Amino acid sequence: MLAETLARIGPLDRVAMAAAQSRLDTLTKPRGSLGRLEALAVQLAGISRRPLPSVEKRAAYVFVADHGVTAEGVSAYPSEVTGQMLANFLAGGAAINVLARQARAKLVVVDVGVSAEMPEHPQLLSRKVARGTRNFVYTPAMTREHAVAAIEAGIASFEPCQLAAVGEMGIGNTTSAAAIVAAAIGAPACDVTGRGTGIDDAIFARKIAVIDKALALHRADPSDSLSLLSAVGGFEIGAMAGAMLAAAAARVPVVIDGFISTAAAIVASRLCADVVPYLIASHVSTEPGHRPALAHLGLRPLLDLDLRLGEGTGAVLSFGLIDAACRLIHEMATFDEARVAEKLR
Amino acid sequence: MLAETLARIGPLDRVAMAAAQSRLDTLTKPRGSLGRLEALAVQLAGISRRPLPSVEKRAAYVFVADHGVTAEGVSAYPSEVTGQMLANFLAGGAAINVLARQARAKLVVVDVGVSAEMPEHPQLLSRKVARGTRNFVYTPAMTREHAVAAIEAGIASFEPCQLAAVGEMGIGNTTSAAAIVAAAIGAPACDVTGRGTGIDDAIFARKIAVIDKALALHRADPSDSLSLLSAVGGFEIGAMAGAMLAAAAARVPVVIDGFISTAAAIVASRLCADVVPYLIASHVSTEPGHRPALAHLGLRPLLDLDLRLGEGTGAVLSFGLIDAACRLIHEMATFDEARVAEKLR
Repeated sequence: MLAETLARIGPLDRVAMAAAQSRLDTLTKPRGSLGRLEALAVQLAGISRRPLPSVEKRAAYVFVADHGVTAEGVSAYPSEVTGQMLANFLAGGAAINVLARQARAKLVVVDVGVSAEMPEHPQLLSRKVARGTRNFVYTPAMTREHAVAAIEAGIASFEPCQLAAVGEMGIGNTTSAAAIVAAAIGAPACDVTGRGTGIDDAIFARKIAVIDKALALHRADPSDSLSLLSAVGGFEIGAMAGAMLAAAAARVPVVIDGFISTAAAIVASRLCADVVPYLIASHVSTEPGHRPALAHLGLRPLLDLDLRLGEGTGAVLSFGLIDAACRLIHEMATFDEARVAEKLR
Repeated sequence: MLAETLARIGPLDRVAMAAAQSRLDTLTKPRGSLGRLEALAVQLAGISRRPLPSVEKRAAYVFVADHGVTAEGVSAYPSEVTGQMLANFLAGGAAINVLARQARAKLVVVDVGVSAEMPEHPQLLSRKVARGTRNFVYTPAMTREHAVAAIEAGIASFEPCQLAAVGEMGIGNTTSAAAIVAAAIGAPACDVTGRGTGIDDAIFARKIAVIDKALALHRADPSDSLSLLSAVGGFEIGAMAGAMLAAAAARVPVVIDGFISTAAAIVASRLCADVVPYLIASHVSTEPGHRPALAHLGLRPLLDLDLRLGEGTGAVLSFGLIDAACRLIHEMATFDEARVAEKLR
């Protein structure tokens, strides 16, 4: 399934992009004056192969899993919160529920590795790879087979839509994401590790030491996503990477969220570099590793609002801007239609 | 009318702000993890005096006027475009129309000084102070009486609502705004002058020279808004300042747009410093004077999208973020309600 998905990812459609840019240049505004909204409209045209792209059908995916490395005491919250928050997503009370309702996005909650048994629920996709990863300070987080299974869980979760957001929940997952990013971009752990949900100085020092120790132990090949994921990954990180690949294969723009989602984008990009033009970076968080991780992918975030919640909240928050880009290219009048004089020679 | 409006502007409600912050701290997310959205919710609570603020009733004001200084050849577009774009606003084809529809904001178009005669239209407020300003390179742009009349036109245009955006259209108005900002913050014209709708190097050099010449001629008192407005202002800049003051007097949050709107905010703040906490800076544009002007007011923009269109487009684009802040504090579940464990000791 993974190989078949990778094979379907192609380049953006340059003809549709040029047509979108031509139309933007005829609309009643100085050329280029809508800035990044114009670039977004052109990107969406290239992805969808439509000069007038549409993003009406929207979905937000939240992949949820537990992390064995929490045994090292790297988080401010107990592991039980992962399953409790999953229940909160299903009850509609979390931040992502509020923002998905506002953005008219269907919320898809996927259990890819919560430790606790989750009750059946019509809104929950159950694609558990295992009951949490192993503690990667001592042993690889998962087998290579489980890394593939996590990615394929993300691919299988993806449904046809016109705009997708990818987010996560998993106590301990900033530790896993920081380890992946440190290894992938060749940065020391202290440069890309942050305070996650809000840890104190003692836990912060321990978190960095844990990552350093794990990276020294596993010596994963940073060019090999499966090696990285197996060593220090999380099931939800693999699944997010899979969902991104599935979106690109279906020619759907996929909005990434915070630091953990961006770590997953790096994993996806090393499975297939062609996925990157399908990604939209929604925001840059307060996690110190987020900015270098985005820069590594060549992505510039749309928002900078000091968010650090995850769940896909930043991604869905940016849907309004993406929607605006689409509406402008569809609905604005041209200079001719409005009988407005063009620029002086 | 101006004095009466200024007298009604009071400080934010600290009790409502503290209540909003307390509620945010009980919601199912790490404290502070919604970043600037939390600060927005608290600000809205302080403005409206309601711990659970609402922004359902929204309006976007576009003030339109012409500028005598266009005779110096400082713009890429002919003056006629001001009236033509006003007609485009009334026909629904401009960028602000599209974005106001998306944001469910009522669009209020106000002629405060277009040179051409505008036909009557149910959506057009006619509050023309004069047919364009005079060319401020040779003579003050307007009399002190007209400066007051422009501000009062903005005050009179304001209607009760829960969230207001203030924007403008007027060929030549980046020249006026740059002159105001240069004088107000004590910066040389070359530091705060940009390429507006997209002028070439020759026009750009002329634009800076025009501003330098005007500032040397008028020597306006930068602490006196009426002196600044009369010397180098525009009717729409005065009207925007008036609308901001009226919003603050009515305890309504008012979202400022680009460089010209921010110049108006400086004018308003020098009539009444207490207006500033009622302002929300929507975005920072590519005009080089915008960032220092915002910093001068102590405002941090929500968006940085290389916009340079005006009309209130950036302001209305940010409504989705402000809406999100309101929805989150209203709709999210608390830790108790969702039975989610709180942070470890």
